[in-house]
Amino acid sequence: MSLDDSWYTEQWAEQGSAISLKLAKKLHHEQSAYQRIEIFETETFGTLMTLDGLVMVTDRDNFVYHEMMSHPALFTHPDPRRVLVIGGGDCGTLREVLKHAGVQLAEQVELDERVTRVAEQFFPELCASNRDPRARLHFADGIQWIADSAPDSYDVIIVDSTDPVGPAAGLFSEEFYQHCHRALGPDGVLVGQSESPLFHADLIVAVQTRLRAAGFADSATLFFPQCTYPSGWWSGTLGCKRGTGCGFRVGDAARKSFTTRYYNAEIHAAALAAPEFLRERLVAR
Amino acid sequence: MSLDDSWYTEQWAEQGSAISLKLAKKLHHEQSAYQRIEIFETETFGTLMTLDGLVMVTDRDNFVYHEMMSHPALFTHPDPRRVLVIGGGDCGTLREVLKHAGVQLAEQVELDERVTRVAEQFFPELCASNRDPRARLHFADGIQWIADSAPDSYDVIIVDSTDPVGPAAGLFSEEFYQHCHRALGPDGVLVGQSESPLFHADLIVAVQTRLRAAGFADSATLFFPQCTYPSGWWSGTLGCKRGTGCGFRVGDAARKSFTTRYYNAEIHAAALAAPEFLRERLVAR
Repeated sequence: MSLDDSWYTEQWAEQGSAISLKLAKKLHHEQSAYQRIEIFETETFGTLMTLDGLVMVTDRDNFVYHEMMSHPALFTHPDPRRVLVIGGGDCGTLREVLKHAGVQLAEQVELDERVTRVAEQFFPELCASNRDPRARLHFADGIQWIADSAPDSYDVIIVDSTDPVGPAAGLFSEEFYQHCHRALGPDGVLVGQSESPLFHADLIVAVQTRLRAAGFADSATLFFPQCTYPSGWWSGTLGCKRGTGCGFRVGDAARKSFTTRYYNAEIHAAALAAPEFLRERLVAR
Repeated sequence: MSLDDSWYTEQWAEQGSAISLKLAKKLHHEQSAYQRIEIFETETFGTLMTLDGLVMVTDRDNFVYHEMMSHPALFTHPDPRRVLVIGGGDCGTLREVLKHAGVQLAEQVELDERVTRVAEQFFPELCASNRDPRARLHFADGIQWIADSAPDSYDVIIVDSTDPVGPAAGLFSEEFYQHCHRALGPDGVLVGQSESPLFHADLIVAVQTRLRAAGFADSATLFFPQCTYPSGWWSGTLGCKRGTGCGFRVGDAARKSFTTRYYNAEIHAAALAAPEFLRERLVAR
């Protein structure tokens, strides 16, 4: 059965697979200085944003990704006050970070200001905390930003990036992780999105290897479903400066003062369980 | 971007989404007494079987489903010797069941013999244990089979069915669960596939409610990724006759004598963690 142009289809040619969402109408289209930004109204996934033809966010399923890119890292750090989000232009991760009452400063460094401006228009819920007095939105190159950061500038760094190709490739390098390590305080925690366990297992192993090589005492990968990303299964990988096994504040997570839709303390612990085919490779590292 | 007929596309109209796999060639097509059975060679997912246009199994990602439909239930029962698989015509679940050395009898009751015969031809790995002396393959109506079963006939019943429409709808009913409850021994465990947490949360809640109403002391849902099923996120739901919280033999699972690719003891515990949006509904039940 073929699909016509009433569907938005994202193909992963090298994986021989694709996902599609049924469209109601196109709401916006622009070519920014960096990429093609499109906004659609879908039939059942709410509003959809794509960048250069890749699904970034839908109303219906973004909660899993945004919660898992924020709360595990923040509950891993003993007392996160200064948080940096690199990328994250739709501001959904920033909103989750600001749910933590202890956070005093949440900086976001997104390369493409247009992504954020378009998100403010079409995803107002995700941008609901952009005017929080603790939030600072910068539009700059995250790789340069972290290279220029003073030591001990942040407690948590979140790399909420696109795929490791083009400008985002540098966000998966050992050199970048070395800069993050220096910019973090002594209990510092980094988390970066690390693609699909089914499609990109080699990348997950490489990210953990590079984090350790860059000086992080421990690394661990979080696994979670993400319907509209390739394979429907996604990951984020933690680097922890202290050698505490990337354990987390279980009691604080269980008594969290804010609402979530996917994350809870049991889900946090569960996300750290590696499927056997990856556990063997990570243990053997 | 549209997709042509070189892709196999499964549409879920009411969910406004679809997944597609790139095809190399069609290997087989037949109309059995019950359904249309098709076999394709894909570019990157190996061999694909579809029934009435719905993806049943691919070489690449079936391991997650088959392992999660078998090992959690078998490690939940204290000493599973007699196992019944209802459905499961591709025989991948049966193969996993027979990895447990303590199993003395594994019966499979599949409605459509042609599914199994086609699987034997095109998925020989999944059917590798069909000639195990402990295996008994029956081709009959599973609902009638369980209604006719004597009390205390099985230790574990696995409902490896298609979606809850058409002939399989009865496999999700309270009456069916009552029959299963009677056919199980005192420590009996049932597990049934229970669809996508993102798309079918109501069904998961209903299955747990019906299992309790049918006499199962405890119920619990297992969550796992499944790339080629709707939303890429899937579930199985356990019913346990003893009120032990559907806990499992952690030590035995950690020391299992057979190989797996997804399942391990940590993954088993992790799969039991409910996402917040479902935990609230299941706790409130």
